[in-house]
Amino acid sequence: MNIGIVGLGLIGGSLGFDLRALDHQVLGVSRHSETCQRAIERGVVDDASIKLSLLTDADVVFICTPLAAIAPTVQQLIPHLSPDAIITDVGSVKTAVVEQVAPLWHNFVGGHPMAGTADSGIEAAVSGLFAGNPYVLTPIETTPAPSVKIVEEIVRSLTKRVYFCRPEDHDRAVAWISHLPVMVSASLIDACMSETDRAVLELAQQLASSGFRDTSRVGGGNPELGVMMARYNQESLLRSLVSYRHSLDQIIELIKQKDWQTLEEKLTETQLQRPQFFSAANS
Amino acid sequence: MNIGIVGLGLIGGSLGFDLRALDHQVLGVSRHSETCQRAIERGVVDDASIKLSLLTDADVVFICTPLAAIAPTVQQLIPHLSPDAIITDVGSVKTAVVEQVAPLWHNFVGGHPMAGTADSGIEAAVSGLFAGNPYVLTPIETTPAPSVKIVEEIVRSLTKRVYFCRPEDHDRAVAWISHLPVMVSASLIDACMSETDRAVLELAQQLASSGFRDTSRVGGGNPELGVMMARYNQESLLRSLVSYRHSLDQIIELIKQKDWQTLEEKLTETQLQRPQFFSAANS
Repeated sequence: MNIGIVGLGLIGGSLGFDLRALDHQVLGVSRHSETCQRAIERGVVDDASIKLSLLTDADVVFICTPLAAIAPTVQQLIPHLSPDAIITDVGSVKTAVVEQVAPLWHNFVGGHPMAGTADSGIEAAVSGLFAGNPYVLTPIETTPAPSVKIVEEIVRSLTKRVYFCRPEDHDRAVAWISHLPVMVSASLIDACMSETDRAVLELAQQLASSGFRDTSRVGGGNPELGVMMARYNQESLLRSLVSYRHSLDQIIELIKQKDWQTLEEKLTETQLQRPQFFSAANS
Repeated sequence: MNIGIVGLGLIGGSLGFDLRALDHQVLGVSRHSETCQRAIERGVVDDASIKLSLLTDADVVFICTPLAAIAPTVQQLIPHLSPDAIITDVGSVKTAVVEQVAPLWHNFVGGHPMAGTADSGIEAAVSGLFAGNPYVLTPIETTPAPSVKIVEEIVRSLTKRVYFCRPEDHDRAVAWISHLPVMVSASLIDACMSETDRAVLELAQQLASSGFRDTSRVGGGNPELGVMMARYNQESLLRSLVSYRHSLDQIIELIKQKDWQTLEEKLTETQLQRPQFFSAANS
């Protein structure tokens, strides 16, 4: 198959590695000619260009730009595509993207590979990034079934963990397990830094170990990514945040009331429930 | 030196391994005779007994029981000790312990090794558990300086990262970096489980990956330990929780107001501040 990739960063570049290994013809487009050159040198693509016209013969095009650039990119891409071409994307929020792109190109299948590393850019691209990780597809009622089938087949060749759902359900689910943790974790760092007793703050910094390290990790990540999540998934994220504050308030109240028995019941419940979130990864 | 250890669990047992390796004579006391037997078999102690009278000749005794048992244990131990014997403990909260124990035994030096694994009990004991980790000592004005010196020397032979502070400062610091994260993380799991749309909850459970895994880890830990933290460090923990809720509310408000610029500034700040918490571990 002739597969186009627009945006040759971590996700786009890693897609290129895997799809070439599966004997597809992979053509890449980046705004930067140096990125195109590095993509060819690293073997991420068969050919690359700063011009979207490179994708004239593409059967399927993966849009791997940042969220805000997805719809504008599709708009610029359309004049170059054959009418049967399928567009898919890798954006981490789906409702806003699908709402913007589906009216522009009928043959669009929203997608979200739940994979990544701490690095970004073409140099961060690696083979096998998607294997074992979830890949969500969010077709809507008007999405042509044969196009969904073709994207599904490509995606299944990258990872066995393919999930289908409505864009809205995707966004609610990732609000819980991806976007809410960022805000919860950032608030932890922010709160600690509010300690006005210099000696206590320094001691806290000296004593911090694995518990603080893990709980604060995603809150100390890329700020642009955090803002992107909030911006494009505002409604679901706020819904999760309000529910989170309610859970937090309950715990604060139990501690205030010295209701240790109910607190223990609640912590027993969270201990019991947590493994439910990781059973799919191990099955 | 003749060193006693009361409580042969993860911490007490691991102390035994390290102190014997440093050529101390190590005597252990546990309430359970099977634990005493296993401690001898594993080489954790030179001798062990269910009777505190084993520690008659001890120069230093480490109390390694759960927090609630520290003061009662000291009370039972006193009739068996020589007047010069030094008592120290390994409890994870210090103000309550020091307030209870210092009046009972003048020669008491509060301590807290910040080390552990997910396991507990004598079988979990390992050599070198303390190396590279912080060990806090919290002597007060009335603590005899020579006793502090002796405990410090023993502790420095286990880890180079020895810190001194007031019991109250210790408790405020660990509230930030150890106890608050547990409640923040447990609230995250609790909030996710409140999702009433079954399909969304199941999808969230299927899509959860490293971000959720890390942020939820300590909230899915031992419930008794979480209650212990809240119970014995109630004041400092509540102080941290109220400050945390304030930070969270600010982030919620920024997202509500779509103030993306201020949100990005805040997330840039948390990204910048987080490494401050881990510089000591690497120095």
